[in-house]
Amino acid sequence: MGQMFTLESLNLLPAPAFTEALGDVFEHAPWVAEAAARGRPFATVAALHEAMIGALRASSPPQQLAVIQAHPELGSRVRRRELTEESQYEQGGLGLDRLSEAEFAAFTRLNAAYRDKFGFPFIICVRRHTRDSILRQFERRLSNDMDAERQAAMEEIALITRLRLCDRVEGPGKPKTDGRLSTHALDTVAGRPAAGMSIALFEVGRSARSLLAQTRTNADGRTDAPLLAGAPLRIGAYELQFGVSDYFAAHRIAQADPAFLDVVSIRFSIAEPEGNYHVPLLVTPWSYSTYRGS
Amino acid sequence: MGQMFTLESLNLLPAPAFTEALGDVFEHAPWVAEAAARGRPFATVAALHEAMIGALRASSPPQQLAVIQAHPELGSRVRRRELTEESQYEQGGLGLDRLSEAEFAAFTRLNAAYRDKFGFPFIICVRRHTRDSILRQFERRLSNDMDAERQAAMEEIALITRLRLCDRVEGPGKPKTDGRLSTHALDTVAGRPAAGMSIALFEVGRSARSLLAQTRTNADGRTDAPLLAGAPLRIGAYELQFGVSDYFAAHRIAQADPAFLDVVSIRFSIAEPEGNYHVPLLVTPWSYSTYRGS
Amino acid sequence: MGQMFTLESLNLLPAPAFTEALGDVFEHAPWVAEAAARGRPFATVAALHEAMIGALRASSPPQQLAVIQAHPELGSRVRRRELTEESQYEQGGLGLDRLSEAEFAAFTRLNAAYRDKFGFPFIICVRRHTRDSILRQFERRLSNDMDAERQAAMEEIALITRLRLCDRVEGPGKPKTDGRLSTHALDTVAGRPAAGMSIALFEVGRSARSLLAQTRTNADGRTDAPLLAGAPLRIGAYELQFGVSDYFAAHRIAQADPAFLDVVSIRFSIAEPEGNYHVPLLVTPWSYSTYRGS
Amino acid sequence: MGQMFTLESLNLLPAPAFTEALGDVFEHAPWVAEAAARGRPFATVAALHEAMIGALRASSPPQQLAVIQAHPELGSRVRRRELTEESQYEQGGLGLDRLSEAEFAAFTRLNAAYRDKFGFPFIICVRRHTRDSILRQFERRLSNDMDAERQAAMEEIALITRLRLCDRVEGPGKPKTDGRLSTHALDTVAGRPAAGMSIALFEVGRSARSLLAQTRTNADGRTDAPLLAGAPLRIGAYELQFGVSDYFAAHRIAQADPAFLDVVSIRFSIAEPEGNYHVPLLVTPWSYSTYRGS
Repeated sequence: MGQMFTLESLNLLPAPAFTEALGDVFEHAPWVAEAAARGRPFATVAALHEAMIGALRASSPPQQLAVIQAHPELGSRVRRRELTEESQYEQGGLGLDRLSEAEFAAFTRLNAAYRDKFGFPFIICVRRHTRDSILRQFERRLSNDMDAERQAAMEEIALITRLRLCDRVEGPGKPKTDGRLSTHALDTVAGRPAAGMSIALFEVGRSARSLLAQTRTNADGRTDAPLLAGAPLRIGAYELQFGVSDYFAAHRIAQADPAFLDVVSIRFSIAEPEGNYHVPLLVTPWSYSTYRGS
Repeated sequence: MGQMFTLESLNLLPAPAFTEALGDVFEHAPWVAEAAARGRPFATVAALHEAMIGALRASSPPQQLAVIQAHPELGSRVRRRELTEESQYEQGGLGLDRLSEAEFAAFTRLNAAYRDKFGFPFIICVRRHTRDSILRQFERRLSNDMDAERQAAMEEIALITRLRLCDRVEGPGKPKTDGRLSTHALDTVAGRPAAGMSIALFEVGRSARSLLAQTRTNADGRTDAPLLAGAPLRIGAYELQFGVSDYFAAHRIAQADPAFLDVVSIRFSIAEPEGNYHVPLLVTPWSYSTYRGS
Repeated sequence: MGQMFTLESLNLLPAPAFTEALGDVFEHAPWVAEAAARGRPFATVAALHEAMIGALRASSPPQQLAVIQAHPELGSRVRRRELTEESQYEQGGLGLDRLSEAEFAAFTRLNAAYRDKFGFPFIICVRRHTRDSILRQFERRLSNDMDAERQAAMEEIALITRLRLCDRVEGPGKPKTDGRLSTHALDTVAGRPAAGMSIALFEVGRSARSLLAQTRTNADGRTDAPLLAGAPLRIGAYELQFGVSDYFAAHRIAQADPAFLDVVSIRFSIAEPEGNYHVPLLVTPWSYSTYRGS
Repeated sequence: MGQMFTLESLNLLPAPAFTEALGDVFEHAPWVAEAAARGRPFATVAALHEAMIGALRASSPPQQLAVIQAHPELGSRVRRRELTEESQYEQGGLGLDRLSEAEFAAFTRLNAAYRDKFGFPFIICVRRHTRDSILRQFERRLSNDMDAERQAAMEEIALITRLRLCDRVEGPGKPKTDGRLSTHALDTVAGRPAAGMSIALFEVGRSARSLLAQTRTNADGRTDAPLLAGAPLRIGAYELQFGVSDYFAAHRIAQADPAFLDVVSIRFSIAEPEGNYHVPLLVTPWSYSTYRGS
């Protein structure tokens, strides 16, 4: 992922060294860093990013198009290992390098249709999406007109480069790029946290589900760490499973046989990658509630 | 299923005709009906059934064992079409005549182990169970001792014959043999019944799920008919699915994109075949509650 | 309250007898009934009422004003016993004949201000309101202009006469004039109706509260009769009280000492006199929920 | 309240200075501190307190009785200003120095009955109780026998002196003597914290209610500080009021007229002075839930 810099040190570097440090934040476009270097010093990481985006927006349409063109096609070149190191990291995290044949075919078809219509590759900030969410966006954006789609591509480039920059630079005024998913379980028979309840979190896609976390509630009915944190949440569908009947059995609370509630499952979608989602369970052997808290 | 009788007419029939009418309620044991005939007249259907059960309990242990022996093995003879018409109806309703090879193997293994231990076939009132529940009972009862298991077999015969008798006889004092499962959906954003919400009910077994009902809520947020009624509920696991995001989209209530809640699924188990289960959903785009009502 | 008629008999009466039967439905305006008589026969009670309202609306502005003028002042003439029997019944039901000196003063002041501004008495269908709600409407309508307020008065006359007509005439197509308030209590520790829980219903006004119903839940967790029914609900504020800690103590469910929840009180307002309000309680010793159902 | 000491400095003081420092922790019984001094050094504040309690329990029954006797009568001597500074602070905090004539009469009667039966004054750790809770304990303990009541008095002395010691000594291992009451409000129409909702907290006694806190939720739907903290919670009944209809009106969420829910009030009792009580509100214009969280 390259070297870390402090904002302070970047402000002091000679221009060529600055450009070398941040030249690959914009895909194959070191000139963006070069232009931004002239705006130094920057008080915040956000201001540095705005300066880079500003340089891109101030460039000519053909230059902008060249930046768009420089991005890899989703899912295809991943398999052919023809990516910049940054793109490889991003697309790999989503499993785009492990697509099934069917998924690979879907991406290939969409990539072709998209390139036919717009003449440039489909760009999306993959670290903010699940595979299902990317396919959904792909299909939606295919119906855009050219202007709307160039605008959409530019916005995704802003999101991609904001993340890349935050990975690379420490300093004041870093934009919030992380989200958080947490839960807690409350036993409303006893009026206390439900300690020791098993919790599992799944990502649930159209074609598969994958286990993201498996844990047990602590004495406070919470998990010792958030279920998801330290990165953008991926837009998509999730399922939380709570081991309710095991919990009540362990506490010798009367239940039916079989228990009315066994494993309670809550399915929800995340729409804000940088948001805080708290999805608790209030439960008795015969009832439960959930809600999005924060 | 044979002819219907009124309790009144049964009270007046000549004894041989009475025995003919009810002789097959107890599997291959017309003498039970014959004995009960001497207790006429009966004021209620329940009293008639108690008299029959009383005759069985008053018989000698070898006679009782013969009645137990006369029952078919679960799932095996079904496939060989060697059942009384009554047993065929009961086991067919559960799909015991459509077992997969794996399930058939499991039943065969359990039947053999059971017969080895107890020397008679495993008897259970199949109309009160799902396949999973039968397998669970099978495994549990295999660990009984002989006395407890003969007692269990007699209790199941009481349940089986109570259902058969209620199918056959109209009259006062019929025992409650039906259960009921119902739901309703309440939109707590608008404080009104959630009309037009799609609802699906599944039986969810260890190896498969099957759709039992698919409907849409009416103006009162309820379904026009109960989801299950008119028969015992089968002990087992179920899942209700509510089309929440479609509902709120149709009512132009703001939701996230993708909606936080899409299809809300509630899994629960039924333990009382003759019980009333009301499992409602109180819902906003960001929260829901459910509980067992009645 | 006068004699009951069937719609059928009213359709057949000689015109003078019809006018005599319904002449006092519109305050001091038997000519309204006289005009409506010419539209007979009516298929529904609603059609009869529409015909009477139509006659009023078709009359000249001075005639309409005369009908408005013929109504008593609220709360003032009640004390002087100068009302038609109908008005006395309606205003008495609200306790307008038992006003405190302070309330009497408030009504006197509002009546005077209203008459000063509009030149006719304030008309409201008192059977659809609590005293607080009447005072609130009084203050609101004082800020109307003349046209809006004459319109408002005509609408209230329609509501008053609809109720009077439904009290007087049996037949098909009677408009819904009754509301209903009901409740039920569910014990979500045990997953069953909370039977035997004490319930009290109060009307809660700005200056006083009055007990409207006191009862106990039956085996189904409901009250044997609705808390309010058989009449319009009065717009206003109410409070339901549920004896929660006594209930759980009687069922030997563990509670803190003192119990976290003792008497749970739910305050809510009714805005639709003809609506169905179901206000249940789902409760454990440590949590509760309520909502407006129907 | 006297000087603060660190546990470290107390461990090093000459014995007479130690006794002087803590001599008044036990009412008129400096010998308890004197005895505890011999057990130094103490690793924790809790161990110091246990040593003092141990000295008391090791003393002769007449000595113990003398300590009990040395306590003031509740509510009576307060008015006569005949208390140690410590007792005056403790009883004043509860308003025992501002009793109405009726309350004073009740306390006088109970004090007399208690002294008649047991021959010593009623001792209770007033900082853990409301007036209602004290009266309830008074009546309960009057029915104790002598042994149980001497035991009860000793336990209250332990609670009283634990608080006094914690007020006086800083150091490791301080027992938890504080409780906390907090709330938050969640808007489940919008799936976000209900910011800017008015909240009021009352203590609700049999004869009066007093406002303890009045505030407004912050952007996170919480209050900037806990509603109660930094001291034991007083056992007794409380009421939280949430300005629900004003909140939804400010956010332009549709409500009935008048709103179904206006001010939602939640009454609950606190039973654990050292506990954490979190009592949130999940609310739409038509429904709400609350529960004890932590």
